[in-house]
Amino acid sequence: MRMKTAEGNKMHYDRSICFPQGFAASAVSAGIKSNGLNDLGLVYAENGAVVASVFTLNRFQAAPVLVSRKNISSSHGKVSAILVNSGCANSLTGKSGIRSAERMLSEIARQLHVGKNTVLAASTGVIGKHLPEKSISESIPSLVAGLSVDGDTRFAQSIMTTDKFPKQVATEIRIGKETFRIGGTAKGAGMIHPNMATMLCFITTDAAVDRRVLQNALTRATDRSFNTITVDGDTSTNDTVFLLANGASGVKIKTTSEINLFTDALTVIMRELATMIVRDGEGATRFVRLKIESAANYHDAVRVGRAVGTSPLVKTAIFGGDPNWGRVLSAVGNSTANYDPSRVELNIGEVCVFKKNEPQRVDQVKLKELFSTKEIEMTVKLNAGRESAQVFTCDLSYDYVKINGEYTT
Amino acid sequence: MRMKTAEGNKMHYDRSICFPQGFAASAVSAGIKSNGLNDLGLVYAENGAVVASVFTLNRFQAAPVLVSRKNISSSHGKVSAILVNSGCANSLTGKSGIRSAERMLSEIARQLHVGKNTVLAASTGVIGKHLPEKSISESIPSLVAGLSVDGDTRFAQSIMTTDKFPKQVATEIRIGKETFRIGGTAKGAGMIHPNMATMLCFITTDAAVDRRVLQNALTRATDRSFNTITVDGDTSTNDTVFLLANGASGVKIKTTSEINLFTDALTVIMRELATMIVRDGEGATRFVRLKIESAANYHDAVRVGRAVGTSPLVKTAIFGGDPNWGRVLSAVGNSTANYDPSRVELNIGEVCVFKKNEPQRVDQVKLKELFSTKEIEMTVKLNAGRESAQVFTCDLSYDYVKINGEYTT
Repeated sequence: MRMKTAEGNKMHYDRSICFPQGFAASAVSAGIKSNGLNDLGLVYAENGAVVASVFTLNRFQAAPVLVSRKNISSSHGKVSAILVNSGCANSLTGKSGIRSAERMLSEIARQLHVGKNTVLAASTGVIGKHLPEKSISESIPSLVAGLSVDGDTRFAQSIMTTDKFPKQVATEIRIGKETFRIGGTAKGAGMIHPNMATMLCFITTDAAVDRRVLQNALTRATDRSFNTITVDGDTSTNDTVFLLANGASGVKIKTTSEINLFTDALTVIMRELATMIVRDGEGATRFVRLKIESAANYHDAVRVGRAVGTSPLVKTAIFGGDPNWGRVLSAVGNSTANYDPSRVELNIGEVCVFKKNEPQRVDQVKLKELFSTKEIEMTVKLNAGRESAQVFTCDLSYDYVKINGEYTT
Repeated sequence: MRMKTAEGNKMHYDRSICFPQGFAASAVSAGIKSNGLNDLGLVYAENGAVVASVFTLNRFQAAPVLVSRKNISSSHGKVSAILVNSGCANSLTGKSGIRSAERMLSEIARQLHVGKNTVLAASTGVIGKHLPEKSISESIPSLVAGLSVDGDTRFAQSIMTTDKFPKQVATEIRIGKETFRIGGTAKGAGMIHPNMATMLCFITTDAAVDRRVLQNALTRATDRSFNTITVDGDTSTNDTVFLLANGASGVKIKTTSEINLFTDALTVIMRELATMIVRDGEGATRFVRLKIESAANYHDAVRVGRAVGTSPLVKTAIFGGDPNWGRVLSAVGNSTANYDPSRVELNIGEVCVFKKNEPQRVDQVKLKELFSTKEIEMTVKLNAGRESAQVFTCDLSYDYVKINGEYTT
């Protein structure tokens, strides 16, 4: 019921972080990308906001991740702005990379007249290269001057790397007689091992949410959205999700039912962004929804989904429109989830291909057809419990190889 | 020193399982593959042999794996022959698949006049399809009649699937005034996730080795050969390694130094076969040697090597000849090994690109050249201990996608 309420809200796909009240955004070209496109973006909460965050678990952490962590800690989670660049990850750049990020955040803080430790950073692009600090510094005045309450789409475009389209979604939620808003944008398109391509996500809300509640909501929603397409502990050096809550709507999220409503709405927004990333998978030609049912627990269900969803043999078969379902079960068999292999069932669309340890008689033409559509659904029934999960993936095509073989050069 | 002795032996690349005395082999076309190539092979130890084995850890185990395990157990590890087919994995085929494998092994046993439980099976090919039992049965008389002491190359060819060349190696080892021989053959060419494509390997020796010693030697050698290109617990439904020792040379492996010599020689043979599989990686255009040095322990070193060696972003960059070394360290950062990221160093060939937490000044032209060769060597120094390992991988090319997108159809 709760999910239905949250999912029932109207979604706006042309708006994002400026849809909630009190947020402005801007974007300029600072010459970081060689193609002249906007590559520097700014999000600004005019009266400040409480922040929640999720960072990469990679052992190598990029300079913007380290600096943002420090600022969130010293500002006690009360921040004013986020500076984001694409084209250079500022990762594996040592102490000078950290100083470089700090200097730029200080400059933003100075020009916005806010505390030095209230500006956060996020970067995406090539690893091991230093930021072109001079050209970024020169661009900051026009970036700040350009802040506007309809700058969200320009911001969403400025954070793109190999993305084919900007990813935005926003919604308004009624709570009693009042309403609050949530909006978000994300970048990311690497789907063969979603873990390795940087994912950045920025979400704003004008609800008033306590810092601890905000963090719990973000952690739970991340688990049920981005972590169904990406892998905990197995991420790029830069992955970051920031959620800002400024309370501008006057709606306070306090009671358990309010917290549940807020968390569900946040989950829906983040799941929309996560599926956009899959649909924009580098070189992807087909979208795949993996339903894992009757698992012993939620994490087992996700584990099985990930094993299938990251298997290159499964993903190339899907690209080829080849109904080679044995590869799907072989991938299931490599997951560490708890189940009895002899009870596992596999459906492609509505067609059961394997059940009770036996391959089923299947119309091969029908099966081939199911593998030839743009959207493929597979259901793995583990018959080991009551939990289920959905994991989203895409196929692995020639273009994935092309895009990633030519990325820096 | 020991490794030097074993590695110093002359290798024969045109011989394999019939190089040791007392073994014969054969191969025929049984119509399992549609292209008319040989697809059914037989290895025969005329006076029987002690067997050691390593099987897939996939939760779904193919019929030949289940039947072979049972026969090894009931024969107490004393066997006579191995029947191998390509073109059909006989996996996820339920009880009828098991009965089918058993009937064919019984037929081989009958025609060879050996015990029913002394014949083992291995299969590779498409999962979820039944063996064409009738045409196989009809081929068995000519298969048995064709056994010969120079049938090893024909056997090596008959087990190929997407392999571009047969993989064989054999050597003779002097021990005091006596000599014994080891020979082996393998199939396998799937290298993006080496775990998912079936690897079969058959090794013979005419040394006399106790069953327990033989198993320990095989386990250790597998760890240091195939497990540096493939992943424990993360394999296809059919992966199998069989090692047969028939004692025909009269050389007995008993003392610690003899056991070490034998194990090292076996490791060299298996490492040769493992690197052949990498060089024949599906669509591979470059061979990559990853040296992981100064790890806290051997398994940590392998873990780091695997994280790098299975990263599609690393593998596509290598295909593109793109010196994007940040992806290599990002993959290192996702491994679960124990080390301090700030002490990690990365060399491409002899060129240090990252050290003491800082990217190094590097001649970009030189770096680009190093990435353009057919064989690339990278060294990750963890500075966390004294152990090292080598992991072998290849690039990820358009042809990988092509080969795997079209495999069953």
